[in-house]
Formats: sequence, C-alpha cells, structure tokens
Amino acid sequence: MADFNFQNPIFTTYVIAACLMILKAVAMSWLTVVRMVGANGGFRNPEDMMKTPMNPNPNANQTAPHESVERIRRIHLNVLENVPFFLVAGLLFVLTQPPLWLAQLLFYGYVVSRVLHFIAYITAQIHEIRATFWSIGSFILIYMTGATLVKALGY
Amino acid sequence: MADFNFQNPIFTTYVIAACLMILKAVAMSWLTVVRMVGANGGFRNPEDMMKTPMNPNPNANQTAPHESVERIRRIHLNVLENVPFFLVAGLLFVLTQPPLWLAQLLFYGYVVSRVLHFIAYITAQIHEIRATFWSIGSFILIYMTGATLVKALGY
Amino acid sequence: MADFNFQNPIFTTYVIAACLMILKAVAMSWLTVVRMVGANGGFRNPEDMMKTPMNPNPNANQTAPHESVERIRRIHLNVLENVPFFLVAGLLFVLTQPPLWLAQLLFYGYVVSRVLHFIAYITAQIHEIRATFWSIGSFILIYMTGATLVKALGY
Repeated sequence: MADFNFQNPIFTTYVIAACLMILKAVAMSWLTVVRMVGANGGFRNPEDMMKTPMNPNPNANQTAPHESVERIRRIHLNVLENVPFFLVAGLLFVLTQPPLWLAQLLFYGYVVSRVLHFIAYITAQIHEIRATFWSIGSFILIYMTGATLVKALGY
Repeated sequence: MADFNFQNPIFTTYVIAACLMILKAVAMSWLTVVRMVGANGGFRNPEDMMKTPMNPNPNANQTAPHESVERIRRIHLNVLENVPFFLVAGLLFVLTQPPLWLAQLLFYGYVVSRVLHFIAYITAQIHEIRATFWSIGSFILIYMTGATLVKALGY
Repeated sequence: MADFNFQNPIFTTYVIAACLMILKAVAMSWLTVVRMVGANGGFRNPEDMMKTPMNPNPNANQTAPHESVERIRRIHLNVLENVPFFLVAGLLFVLTQPPLWLAQLLFYGYVVSRVLHFIAYITAQIHEIRATFWSIGSFILIYMTGATLVKALGY
C-alpha cells in the first residue's frame, strides 16, 4: 500500500529522514547565532550595532564578515540548495513503492551523507572529502527524482 | 481521520497557513522589484546596466549594493532558511493527529510570528525584537518536527 | 478523485512537473561545479586553495569571485526563491481538483517559464526578457496558491 500514513513503513522511513533533515537545517540557524555570540560580530544589519541589553558595547566592526560565522552561512546555503528538494523528492518517491530496503538505503543514506558533509565542511577538510559526501547525497536525490519521473510517465 | 483532504480540519488549517506563507514568500520577490525601481539601482547583473525601455538612463552605480534593496534580500534569505522547512514539517505534522486547537495554535502562531518578524526587520527594530519573533517561529518548527519524529519512531 | 496517487492524472501531471523542476535545481549545483573547474576558481572556502589531487597548482586568486561562476550562483538563488514554493503550492493545488487542462497549463507552463528564464539569464539577455519569463512563473505560483487558499477557506 503506497500511501502517506504511518502504517506504510516506506512512508515512515521517509518521515524519520525528513524530520532529521529539517532539525539539522534549523540547527544551522541556531549555530549561526551561537557563532555570532562567540565572535561578538558577524552581524548583517546596521541596527545590530545599536546598544541594547544583548549588545552592551557595540562597535563598528560587528557587521564586518567574520570567518567563523561566514562558514556556517556557507554551510547553511548548501543546505538550502539541497534539503528542500530532498524533502519533496523523497515524499513523491514513496509513491513509487520501492522495496523497503532500498527506501531505507536511500533515505538514511542521504541523512548520513549530509551529516558527513556537514562535519567535513565545519572542520574545513579538503575539498575532495567535502565534495565526495555532497556528491553521494546529490546522486541519491537524482536517482529518487529520476525513478519517480519514470513512474509518473508510466514506464 | 488523519488525511490530506479538505474534510480534515487539521489539514485545512495547515493549507491556509501554508498558502499564506507561500504568498508572503513570493511577495518578498516583488518587494525587491519595487525597491529596485524605487532606488533605480541595487541590481545584480552586468546586463541590467544596459539601456533598455525600463532603464533609459543606465549608470555604473546601478549594480552597487543599495541598502533599501539589500534589506529585503536579507529578509528574503531568512524566509528561505525557514519557510520551506515549515511547509514540509507542517504537512507531516498533520498526520500525527494533533488536537485541532493545537494545530491552529502552531500553524497560525507560526504565520503571526513570521509576519511580526517581517515587520520588525523591515522597520529595522533592534535585534532583540526581531530575534524574539524569529525564535517563536523556530521553536514552533522544532516542536512540530520533534512531535512528528516521535510519532514516526512509534513512541 | 482528488488524491495523491498515480491514478489521478492531475497528480501525475504535478509529479512530472515537480521532478523536472527538482532535476533542474540539482543541475544548478553541478553547473556551478563545471564552471568552477572551467574557471579554475570562484571557490568560496579558504581550504579550497590547498594543494590537493584536484587542485595541484593552487593560487590565492581562486577564492576571488569569478563572474562565470557568480552568474550561476545568482541563477541558483533565484531557483531557491521560487521552486521550493512551487513544489508545495502545486501539491496542494492538486487537491482543489482543477480541470486537467488547467493543471497541465499551469504545471507545464511553470516548467517552461523557468527553463526560458534560465536560458535568458545564462545568456545574459536584457532584464526585460528575463523579467518577463520570471513574472509568468511567479503569476502561476500566485494563482495556484490563491486558488488553494480560497478552496481551503471554503469559498
């Protein structure tokens, strides 16, 4: 039964992967906050240099780019370029009724690839490592979308 | 009945909130256009400085950053970091069959928090005000996603 | 029958359009890679200037902005500002049970408008051409979302 409910183990697998990816995406916002507090800078708005309870000693450098914050912003942008499409592609892929093992491999494989990409990125590993993990996730996304398209086209 | 149709009031609540958030997101693009026209600048592409019917008197400053336009772009990026994840998290949360009052509180609360965040941001309120409204939305998103994950995991 | 399965031709139309848009979005990432390789630059991370198998002769200019790469990044950001919202709006629009011809017009019209927007953007056509194709897609998105909202509100 290919349907969107928790009696369908393929759908349930998707939901677990989707929730983990959403929580990871939200964590990027909070990590940006943590790093801005740690750097006491990396802000983006002129009004963020005003004297307020959370910024008692403002200075003009606080809106200059700060590498520790910018790195999270680059990671975050990479999330935005990938995860929203996974969330929709995965949902539609459920309806193609793949074998459960394949659904688990692809959905959980995507989550693992993105977590490893994050770790490689935040620890500034060389490009080859970061790109490898990113590519695995991208290939999973392409495969799921292609398989869904083929199914929708009736082949 | 936890299903994706308009007989399910929880789903209908989600759809109303989702449509409002999508329209608000699209409005950011148009607001960028309005502000670029108002500033006669803030463009991003070299070809936007060519003499055309809509740009009869081009000048080289038109692709320099223009704060009134950049502010909307920052707001827009904040939308991209949040709303797509709400749209998916909210849809999946419907299947957890929350009480209607809770669904209304969370879905409409999210919409209100994002509208207030937008107003605080575009009027350049101090960081504390903007961050408070943003955090409310973020907590709603985290709660919905966490509740859905717990349900999917069978607890 | 307004439901999310491949027996519903309106849903199938949506899935085809959605898959094409997801594949196009993913292609932007790979096109960025292709252009970075072609430019041997346009990188964004300090670690990307390290000597590695894929970057045997690094130099400090490799992280400077490179227009051929930046153009793809601008196009990619435009995708992020539009396509995720289409993916959700289109899915919900299916439930309003539009006539099939209308669903095909809107879904496939959106895909065509986005492909033309991409072609106009990557070939640096004047703003008027690019904006026209973008506006068509935006109006389709607004219409679908508005029609879904009206349905959800019970009118």
